Amino acid sequence: MNIVAYLKEHSQMVDRALDQYTAPEQQRPDGLAPVLTDIPAALLESLRYSLLGGGKRLRPVLVIAAAALFTVPAQRVLPTACALEMIHTYSLIHDDLPCMDDDDLRRGRPTNHKVYGDAVATLSGDALLTMAFELLACQGRVEGVSPALALRVVGELAVAAGAAGMVGGQVEDLAWEGRSASAEQLQRIHRLKTGALFRAALRAGAILGGAQPADLACLDSYAAHYGLAFQIQDDVLDIIGDEAKTGKGVGRDERHDKSTYVRHFGLQGASERAQAEVAAARAALAPFGERGEVLSALAQFVIDREG
Amino acid sequence: MNIVAYLKEHSQMVDRALDQYTAPEQQRPDGLAPVLTDIPAALLESLRYSLLGGGKRLRPVLVIAAAALFTVPAQRVLPTACALEMIHTYSLIHDDLPCMDDDDLRRGRPTNHKVYGDAVATLSGDALLTMAFELLACQGRVEGVSPALALRVVGELAVAAGAAGMVGGQVEDLAWEGRSASAEQLQRIHRLKTGALFRAALRAGAILGGAQPADLACLDSYAAHYGLAFQIQDDVLDIIGDEAKTGKGVGRDERHDKSTYVRHFGLQGASERAQAEVAAARAALAPFGERGEVLSALAQFVIDREG
Repeated sequence: MNIVAYLKEHSQMVDRALDQYTAPEQQRPDGLAPVLTDIPAALLESLRYSLLGGGKRLRPVLVIAAAALFTVPAQRVLPTACALEMIHTYSLIHDDLPCMDDDDLRRGRPTNHKVYGDAVATLSGDALLTMAFELLACQGRVEGVSPALALRVVGELAVAAGAAGMVGGQVEDLAWEGRSASAEQLQRIHRLKTGALFRAALRAGAILGGAQPADLACLDSYAAHYGLAFQIQDDVLDIIGDEAKTGKGVGRDERHDKSTYVRHFGLQGASERAQAEVAAARAALAPFGERGEVLSALAQFVIDREG
Repeated sequence: MNIVAYLKEHSQMVDRALDQYTAPEQQRPDGLAPVLTDIPAALLESLRYSLLGGGKRLRPVLVIAAAALFTVPAQRVLPTACALEMIHTYSLIHDDLPCMDDDDLRRGRPTNHKVYGDAVATLSGDALLTMAFELLACQGRVEGVSPALALRVVGELAVAAGAAGMVGGQVEDLAWEGRSASAEQLQRIHRLKTGALFRAALRAGAILGGAQPADLACLDSYAAHYGLAFQIQDDVLDIIGDEAKTGKGVGRDERHDKSTYVRHFGLQGASERAQAEVAAARAALAPFGERGEVLSALAQFVIDREG
């Protein structure tokens, strides 16, 4: 299993689809995507700047890999995969705003509001979140996908991205800035802020593949460990990472006086915890047997990555 | 037809549903709504502040009235009706932000960011937009509503609220601030910024009622005239309105140096145009015969209202 090649192939597939879905005034080949005839040019430029500006496409790849567990081809879940990336990108644009984390650098380039101003950045985030649900509505018109399953995915993503998930996590994250959150509180923040969307990506792919409740329970467990490993490794990379590879300013957590796993457990302790979480994530895949190979390698990649 | 009584009855129904849908940690009686166990208290308080802080509930009432054309009871389309109000409220919160219109007063009270700060206000808007789609996913589980129709409504609302609709309109509105937009440009802005969501409300209600394309075409025409009348009257009320009734600061357009219908056509000219649009909206309902009575009265109410 060459996971780097797998990631490259599928992230490029996602990149192409995201580009197509947001291309102005062009009938899409699949007839499914929105035909954008009325979008102000400044808004389209801004949202494409953030959406197509790199990124590892981990969430869309998780959708694709989870669907593949049920032998659903990647092409069939592309609208949902791209919707996940749109939601992720919108959250980055809003998180980077001056009134939030006030960051200047993202994916190796100036943040959206640095280029387009706070108003257009806010609206670009709004537009991407909304467009994600437009794509999910398209997902229900793909052959082999029932509207009932597509609608379930709408619900899954909305819960994960909303007040009881990602948005709630960001509120708590901001509330704890400058105070020392306990390791438990820290875990809660990340479960909401980052974990919920990883989990939704996996569940969405699996649901579109006709997963049963027992399958979803395995993936929930995998997602919990995957998400935690991811966050711990993020904290580690904030200290030892190479800015050219992470695409973010290094030392941001320190600057924002954020509680991190490294602060709680030290670099060595945090790294060990990340490894243990990866092992637990891989173990959760046992019921899938050999079919779990890709997700297993994706978990390992979380701590092998440099950015 | 006592439209004031109709509005009161149905806006109260919507108020109650919005309150229930956002009540913390409480199993909903219908079993459909989200059970909010994990939402940070500060976020819930902020989004409820704006969502439950008055408002005429015109968009949800349009959903209900459009569904009633097809003899669908109001109760059955409540999730969609409330979703419309959540999207509208989110747009108000974001539009009022300092980086946008920078307004202090909304629905007769301090704007959300004045009370909760810019970060929580931004996130409350994000949460409301996301929650709207959660409710639309619930709509597909209501008896008598197929997932396929509910998914179509997801698509309709996403297109209307997004880059090619409401958000795009706000971008253009900001872009023209301080410059003199032509009457045509002004109309385009309002068609996107306000009109798209009115249209989506009507189409959503009708779609859930099993409307045919010809029905939707009538409602599109009604919506176009309704929306224009609404916007012209808004401009008129910005000049002659009573702050206690409009709930907004009077003279905001002047302060923001915005192009308005009153600027283009004068008070008298603008009022006459609003009346003509109302007449055209009512005429578009002809194919519905007596069933169109409520929507007809709702159009008249647009220019009879004082706030």
